[in-house]
Amino acid sequence: MNSKRKKSVGSEKARQTVLPIGAEGRARVAIDAVRPVVDGGRFPVKRIAGESVIVEADIFADGHDELSAALRYRRGELGRWVEVPMKPLVNDVWRAEFEVSGLGDYYYTVQAWIDRFKSWRHGFEKKLAAEQNVALDLLAGADLVELAIERAKGHDRTALERSAKILRSQDAGASEQALADELSLLMNKYPERRWVTTYDKELRVSVERAKARFSAWYEMFPRSCAAKAGVHGTFKDCIARLPYVASMGFDVLYLPPIHPIGVSFRKGKNNSVSAEPTDVGSPWAIGAKAGGHKSIHPQLGTLADFHQLVTKAKEQGLEIALDIAFQCTPDHPYVTEHPEWFRKRPDGTIQYAENPPKKYQDIFPIDFDSDDWQALWQELKSVLIFWCEQGVRIFRVDNPHTKAFPFWEWAIAEVKKKYPDAIFLAEAFTRPKVMYRLAKLGFSQSYTYFAWRNTQAELTEYFTEINQADIADHFRANLWPTTPDILTEYLQFGGRPAFIARLVLAAMLGANYGIYGPAFELCDNVAREPGSEEYLNSEKYQLKHWDLSNKDSLKEIVTLVNRIRRDNPALHSDRSLRFHQVDNSELLCFSKQSDDLTNVIVVVVNLDPHHSQSGWVELETQSLGLDSQQPYQMHELLTGARYLWHGARNFLQLDPQSVPAQIFRMRHKLRREQDFDYFL
Amino acid sequence: MNSKRKKSVGSEKARQTVLPIGAEGRARVAIDAVRPVVDGGRFPVKRIAGESVIVEADIFADGHDELSAALRYRRGELGRWVEVPMKPLVNDVWRAEFEVSGLGDYYYTVQAWIDRFKSWRHGFEKKLAAEQNVALDLLAGADLVELAIERAKGHDRTALERSAKILRSQDAGASEQALADELSLLMNKYPERRWVTTYDKELRVSVERAKARFSAWYEMFPRSCAAKAGVHGTFKDCIARLPYVASMGFDVLYLPPIHPIGVSFRKGKNNSVSAEPTDVGSPWAIGAKAGGHKSIHPQLGTLADFHQLVTKAKEQGLEIALDIAFQCTPDHPYVTEHPEWFRKRPDGTIQYAENPPKKYQDIFPIDFDSDDWQALWQELKSVLIFWCEQGVRIFRVDNPHTKAFPFWEWAIAEVKKKYPDAIFLAEAFTRPKVMYRLAKLGFSQSYTYFAWRNTQAELTEYFTEINQADIADHFRANLWPTTPDILTEYLQFGGRPAFIARLVLAAMLGANYGIYGPAFELCDNVAREPGSEEYLNSEKYQLKHWDLSNKDSLKEIVTLVNRIRRDNPALHSDRSLRFHQVDNSELLCFSKQSDDLTNVIVVVVNLDPHHSQSGWVELETQSLGLDSQQPYQMHELLTGARYLWHGARNFLQLDPQSVPAQIFRMRHKLRREQDFDYFL
Repeated sequence: MNSKRKKSVGSEKARQTVLPIGAEGRARVAIDAVRPVVDGGRFPVKRIAGESVIVEADIFADGHDELSAALRYRRGELGRWVEVPMKPLVNDVWRAEFEVSGLGDYYYTVQAWIDRFKSWRHGFEKKLAAEQNVALDLLAGADLVELAIERAKGHDRTALERSAKILRSQDAGASEQALADELSLLMNKYPERRWVTTYDKELRVSVERAKARFSAWYEMFPRSCAAKAGVHGTFKDCIARLPYVASMGFDVLYLPPIHPIGVSFRKGKNNSVSAEPTDVGSPWAIGAKAGGHKSIHPQLGTLADFHQLVTKAKEQGLEIALDIAFQCTPDHPYVTEHPEWFRKRPDGTIQYAENPPKKYQDIFPIDFDSDDWQALWQELKSVLIFWCEQGVRIFRVDNPHTKAFPFWEWAIAEVKKKYPDAIFLAEAFTRPKVMYRLAKLGFSQSYTYFAWRNTQAELTEYFTEINQADIADHFRANLWPTTPDILTEYLQFGGRPAFIARLVLAAMLGANYGIYGPAFELCDNVAREPGSEEYLNSEKYQLKHWDLSNKDSLKEIVTLVNRIRRDNPALHSDRSLRFHQVDNSELLCFSKQSDDLTNVIVVVVNLDPHHSQSGWVELETQSLGLDSQQPYQMHELLTGARYLWHGARNFLQLDPQSVPAQIFRMRHKLRREQDFDYFL
Repeated sequence: MNSKRKKSVGSEKARQTVLPIGAEGRARVAIDAVRPVVDGGRFPVKRIAGESVIVEADIFADGHDELSAALRYRRGELGRWVEVPMKPLVNDVWRAEFEVSGLGDYYYTVQAWIDRFKSWRHGFEKKLAAEQNVALDLLAGADLVELAIERAKGHDRTALERSAKILRSQDAGASEQALADELSLLMNKYPERRWVTTYDKELRVSVERAKARFSAWYEMFPRSCAAKAGVHGTFKDCIARLPYVASMGFDVLYLPPIHPIGVSFRKGKNNSVSAEPTDVGSPWAIGAKAGGHKSIHPQLGTLADFHQLVTKAKEQGLEIALDIAFQCTPDHPYVTEHPEWFRKRPDGTIQYAENPPKKYQDIFPIDFDSDDWQALWQELKSVLIFWCEQGVRIFRVDNPHTKAFPFWEWAIAEVKKKYPDAIFLAEAFTRPKVMYRLAKLGFSQSYTYFAWRNTQAELTEYFTEINQADIADHFRANLWPTTPDILTEYLQFGGRPAFIARLVLAAMLGANYGIYGPAFELCDNVAREPGSEEYLNSEKYQLKHWDLSNKDSLKEIVTLVNRIRRDNPALHSDRSLRFHQVDNSELLCFSKQSDDLTNVIVVVVNLDPHHSQSGWVELETQSLGLDSQQPYQMHELLTGARYLWHGARNFLQLDPQSVPAQIFRMRHKLRREQDFDYFL
């Protein structure tokens, strides 16, 4: 367990049935279960710049000696170690914290040692209290102080020398000196770390910028942005659309793939197998004569146009996020230049995507088992680097769970070495362990099952799960009520109230959330056919022209919700999310709060889009810092109304036809007569 | 994650932000959370010979390929690896098991790989069902079979060659051949493990003999075994006492230290500071002119006498357990021969034990921080080896938590290298994390807080905690209602019914349990003073003469309880322990069962030693394998009475003045008319 044996962990350690007696056997302190930690240190813990990392560890030794412990952290593998003293809580748990101020990796570990001076002082104090003879004890104390002198310098050294002399003198003042706070502080400053135990791992913290934890996304098809119906939109049209998106308060504008679209086996409207000559194809069918993943679809404009879009967006507080879909049409340049990156069929043709009996002949999946995998990885990485060079820092990765895990771990780390502000969102709707794994590999944010969690029980269970510490330390949810692929039955049949309810749920449950617009704010809820989650006349396969001025648009409430998010720090993170009991299962109540409790938000949503629902909400007053004897004010932020609540239980009624949700800012203290000047 | 990178774990792995692209990046399968595991593999999992180790792991890959996985285990570090195929359960969890038949260490790990044949077969089956053209697929299948041919030999090879030919022929029978079970079995037998993932740890299982898990201990002071009162007992007297102990059904006879007792600062009766010349001293005050830890107290007899005791005990099914108390009186030979093994005070004298303001001048603690610690460790180990050589294999270690942790890990492993059947019981009544740590370091069994857990809530909470998997995998409880140091208030004031209740609780809750006799079976419950847990006139400081024929002795019920334990496999382990609801908090109900459910024991104890208590017990019928529609028989094993119960809820009344506990063997199936010949 001491520093020299640090390398001896895991498989070797498990096998090490016999401690080599030649090694240091006097490192008597045990350090266990250092946390936060992801998979025993295999993956980093995630934080954003400016956050605190609260470190706890189980620390104990044999016998009754007093211990001291230090949290050690550094920035980067070569950084200088900084130490913070740890404090014991209960049950042998110790704690300390450090702030991660910069982007990139931090490392931390824990050291602990027997503190002979602290042990001595403790016994000395008790003997004094029992009026025992402490002559020998003073000499023993002097011995310890004299050892510290050798480690000290300057004034400290002089002060320690003076203390040692007084203790050794056994004069009247010696006992007082022995227990002096000043001496304790000095002895703590120059601790004797004989046989210190160093935790056998350095745990990693991956620090990203604030937007990794708090962001509002707007997804938009550039080709549907033309001013005139039936015309193919361009990046210039997107620039004209920026004020609309920015005014709603979003900060990420995510575009589906902007690359040349293949023509072979192109899909027609509504995903039909045979396309008309005028059909525009799916943006996810990447690759044509005009180029592949580093090229721009000619009908959208030029690279210079794209640069302008990035710049103009930034001016309005919007960052452009690109879609990274590593797959190729038969027309992609890779297919001819690197046929070895694709799987062959026995007849020598390239294997198209299939999920038997379904065939997707317009898509060739990339073969990560290729013998040329190293060149393949480098090329795919170069795609990411290319777009970073064009000013993009946010990537929404399409189906990362169908590409090799080791690739993502490598590629994300490589990009972040050069662009530590890069953010990756994993679009994987698959089994939970695969989704968590992708987050561990380095994805900053992840799509979730949110779209399919609609009842009180489902939402409570799912969001309790993903916000428990061991998941929240690596997995950051990004909640989408709809996507171009997912129009849930709840929205198909719930109408406008359902859209509002899902908007509020996404934006309040998730510090990261997004909407696919303008379909969302215009409440487009017509599915292609019963039982399908695909839109009728989906933008994926055709141009759309949206009437943004439609009077039923949700843009005002979207704007309001985004403003509430920005104004309330409680909503900038998911850590504090807590559900509260409601006696009506059609109502969901939850809260978020800032660490210092100055900002507390309580949200109540009527999950039933058809009927007015009412019930008694029972707030967990203690966690919210409420005095159950005092009334408090609930300021409803969507309407501006203010209510007086009292105690834990309060009654609510929500009519989906007016507003199916209420967002309260809790004002703890209600002013009373004593709070005004005239009372005094 | 592949085998080449196996060494790269823990601290190194945490730092490895970038996967070296020169390494194999095609090991696409992830293996996570392999269990059972203790502290990430730092310590071994405990099992006894003949037990199964059920291994589970989270195994998954990107994409939709089919996977195969194997559990690999071996005996010892140099053993041959044996493989067991793993089976998928749900949620990406895979399982397999292996039996540990011999003593010592086993190692296990997990391998998983993309199974191209299984993936191919799965797609092929679906295409056939959809009546698609499978000509190319048959060729692809033939390619895979041909690769397997290169790995196969003999008949298998010939069979694979035949299959490949049929597939390649694309004849009418080819599809049938492709899906033949025989081909699948052969392909599983010669799997293609390209880019296999091997879990990055080999996890250790420490296998001990059955007595480590199931044992009944009897503690007895040899010096109190003399036939005549006032005479110092000897090993010969112990031999005469063996039939008494054996007849009660115990299998371990544990003796407090048998070494020469110091005279300096010897404690008198009732722990008085000044001893009379005739006082015998505490057996834990080890060391005198006659010798130290490898010597025998002259008044007990000779080494030859001890050998005879060991042999005679064995003949009666009893193993002798010795007490290992690593501490010295001022008269111990170590003090003069190795003064460097003790701490000095500033005046040059040796530091006696103290817990300020209390002083224990009769005891010198050993200084594990000594500069000569390596020689010290070797000497202490030689004490253990010495007694092993005298035929002892069970050690009850006194206060192991006041000796260095690294010493125990080393010393226990060293002893077990030579004597793999050695068993160590840790007598540490200290903070939970320290107690668990000692178990992890190698102690086979541990004393617990059982003595102080007396209410329904306390017992349920504590035994639920220590039997949860992550604790039960390293910590085996040994339950003692009393010890020479611990006479709890529950027993002081509860009288005989309390003794019976605690006996049944210890023997039924704990597969390992013990009593300190004859004080226990004779219900000695007089404390030295109010508020003390010390016995009045404790055997620790004086000779005692016990009237074994006292008519109130519990020996008959002790005998019965031990017989019930032996006869019922459900009681040979703590794994299946489960508590059941009772609507009266003075009653405790719990059950244990054998894996195959053929042996189910339900115990109900009245925790109130003063009043009759009754209540409704609500059994968890599902876990007990009960059909809630059928009546079943409950055979009460203390009285022999048989009851007919029905469903989950049944009523019970227990009078502490008759028997405060009932031990039922559940007979699932009650015979009905259909079960008899005459019905047919």
